[in-house]
Parts: sequence; structure tokens; C-alpha cells
Amino acid sequence: MSHGIVLFAHGSRDAAWHAPIEAVAARMRALAPGVRVACAYLELTEPGLPAAVQALLADGVRAVTVWPMFLGAGRHAREDLPCLLDALRARHPNVTFALQPAIGEHPDVLDTMARTALGGAPR
Amino acid sequence: MSHGIVLFAHGSRDAAWHAPIEAVAARMRALAPGVRVACAYLELTEPGLPAAVQALLADGVRAVTVWPMFLGAGRHAREDLPCLLDALRARHPNVTFALQPAIGEHPDVLDTMARTALGGAPR
Repeated sequence: MSHGIVLFAHGSRDAAWHAPIEAVAARMRALAPGVRVACAYLELTEPGLPAAVQALLADGVRAVTVWPMFLGAGRHAREDLPCLLDALRARHPNVTFALQPAIGEHPDVLDTMARTALGGAPR
Repeated sequence: MSHGIVLFAHGSRDAAWHAPIEAVAARMRALAPGVRVACAYLELTEPGLPAAVQALLADGVRAVTVWPMFLGAGRHAREDLPCLLDALRARHPNVTFALQPAIGEHPDVLDTMARTALGGAPR
């Protein structure tokens, strides 16, 4: 069964905003050339989650893992995203959807942010 | 001259939202016990940047490095934050303020997010 990964971020009116999200996707493709990665946005930036998932399914994906690209886990990650996933599960009953915790809460990411912020200042 | 680091995030009505930001600060203090770290928020969560800086200055800090805790660099990191820093520089002419790029744009953080998102899915 073919797997796909969706990086799900907030979106912004600002065209430059999503560059770091796309950069993570590009880095993933460089690290694992066979992996199917898509970016999706809650609002203001295209594509939305349903369209991004549809593109993965058209590519043969039958298991989707969604990573909320948030540092803090507020309403968007805790309420909006599970609601969007429920709708996708209802629409695509033969597809497996897995929701990960907010990426900023992962211990490795948290540790790297801490080391990065320490490295940027003389002490 | 004593240095301090401010982790500057958006803020949220959601009380749980800032936990990962505070967790980064706690990790920094664990990695470097002598370092002065403060969290500050643009809106909705206390303290704001001026109050967080004031507390560092009261503690003897005379050089402040500000890290925008954003994954995407939109209006908040590119416009609101430099404006806030200009006001602080005018108010505290004997203090050095350094503004870092958005933490999500740092190559180490970007790489760790990519590896984390790849690790979460079977392939």
C-alpha cells in the first residue's frame, strides 16, 4: 500500500509565508526520493487539505499521514484539523488517515529549536 | 555584558497553545543553566515583548537576542516584530537588540522537521 505525507500549515495572505513549509517538503524529498509529500493549508493559501489529499490518491496513495506544521497546538491543530480529517475519512473509506501531533511538540524538533536559539546569542 | 534571549511567538486565546514555546525555553535552560531566556507574545498571551525585555533588563541584561518562533515568515515576523524592536531600541538606547530570522527557516530546524515528518510514516 502506497503512503503519502501531508504537511498541513495555517496559510497566509503573504505569498512568502509558505516558503519554509515548502522547504521542509523539498528536504524530505531529498532525504527520501521515493516519498510522496504534499503541502496543504487551512486557509488563505492553496491547496486546501481535501485537494492535496485528492492529488495523493490520484497518485495511488492509500495511507495518508498528516503533520500539523504548528509550533503551538491551538484550536487549528486540536479542533479544525481533526474535523477536516473526519470529513476525509467519510469521503474516502478505503484510505487510512493518521494524524500526528503538532511538529513543534516533537522532542527532536523542540531540542533543535532550543539548540538553535542558544547558538544565536553570545553568552 | 550580560545577554538574554527572547523567544517571541504569536500568542493565542488557547491557554495550552504556548506550552511548546515554554518547553523550548525550559530545554534551553537545561542545556545552558546560566542563560537568561524569556518568552514573549505578540498578542492574546502575556507577557508582551516590552514587559519581557524589561524583566531581562532588571536582571542586568544589556544585550537581547530575539528569536521569532514562527514556521513561516509572514507579516508578524517581517513587519510587526522589527517595528516593536525599533520602539525598544528607542526606549533603551544602551541596550543592544539583535533580531534573528524565523526559527522555522533555520537549516537545522528545517532538517529536523523533515526527518521527523519522514519518521512518522511507514514507506
